[in-house]
Amino acid sequence: MTPETDSRTRILAAARSMFHARSYADVGIQEICESASVQKGSFYHFFPSKRDLALAVIENMAGDWAHGFIAEAFDENLPPLVRLEYVIDAAYYWQNAAKDIAGRMPGCLFGNLALEISTRDEVMRAKLNAVFDQARDKFRTALEEAAASGAIAPLDAEATATAMLAYLEGVILLAKTRNDPEVILKLGPAIKTLRIELKQ
Amino acid sequence: MTPETDSRTRILAAARSMFHARSYADVGIQEICESASVQKGSFYHFFPSKRDLALAVIENMAGDWAHGFIAEAFDENLPPLVRLEYVIDAAYYWQNAAKDIAGRMPGCLFGNLALEISTRDEVMRAKLNAVFDQARDKFRTALEEAAASGAIAPLDAEATATAMLAYLEGVILLAKTRNDPEVILKLGPAIKTLRIELKQ
Repeated sequence: MTPETDSRTRILAAARSMFHARSYADVGIQEICESASVQKGSFYHFFPSKRDLALAVIENMAGDWAHGFIAEAFDENLPPLVRLEYVIDAAYYWQNAAKDIAGRMPGCLFGNLALEISTRDEVMRAKLNAVFDQARDKFRTALEEAAASGAIAPLDAEATATAMLAYLEGVILLAKTRNDPEVILKLGPAIKTLRIELKQ
Repeated sequence: MTPETDSRTRILAAARSMFHARSYADVGIQEICESASVQKGSFYHFFPSKRDLALAVIENMAGDWAHGFIAEAFDENLPPLVRLEYVIDAAYYWQNAAKDIAGRMPGCLFGNLALEISTRDEVMRAKLNAVFDQARDKFRTALEEAAASGAIAPLDAEATATAMLAYLEGVILLAKTRNDPEVILKLGPAIKTLRIELKQ
């Protein structure tokens, strides 16, 4: 890693952590630079604005999420309905570990940013939608496989997958509001009861 | 209404609308004063800080919500399961009307604030929790009545009610991210499929 990419990486990591722990608007460029140990000039070399940084943070986190959290939870070697249990467990362990470090449950960075900026930034909103669509597709594949194998009755896999993603985000929202990751363990498994029937 | 209460009311209404349309952090005291047509001195007479204003906005909105949206949707003259349909319809019409005015679906003010400030303000977090608990209790009463009448099999009414509230918030979150109130109509009715069984 060159010193230049190293600075960019440190800015991204600092911003991601601070946006997640607090909010997009609450974090200033100056404190990101301090946390990343870079000069402001260096910051603007990589990111013309805080918004450009936020777009890069979403991409960076989405990549890690797709290859980490989502890939592990939706492991295609697992039976499809077991994947739904894994995604709840993964959400719990992730939030619980984050709370252990900071004392506060940070929630889902994508959900946080979606509610904070969706009315004000169409480009960020589109990026967040794309992240949610990727997660929805994992749910849909699991449901399609479960229906094909006869593990569940046929259903509207696309709509039910979207409902499951909405439920996961809603459970994390309530758990964050209570600052209690146990809410995820208690409510999460009911994700498997959600069903939207195929239109006749 | 005295001129004094009128100023306070205008500040509250302006702040509520602006926090809802954008975010808590994004809105400044100066622009709230301008929108409410009050001087800054008058603002600080009523609210020592923006945070005090936000606490008053949550209370004000919670009161309206309890006596408007929630009271209508959870009308106790309606059969309990019909109330669940009404709450989805009410959420849809509310968000759709807001989008018609502003071009953007604002989502749920409580959910928005919960994700924006829960890691940073314990007092606001507690207030938002209390609002969510009130709504959860309406779901619980509907479920208890439905179970008592035999309309649904016995279930963990408290946990299922919490799951339903989480789902409602999650559906509104996804709909806001898509800027599409139709998402509420499409996914919402599946709220009735959520079930958490009583512990044996």
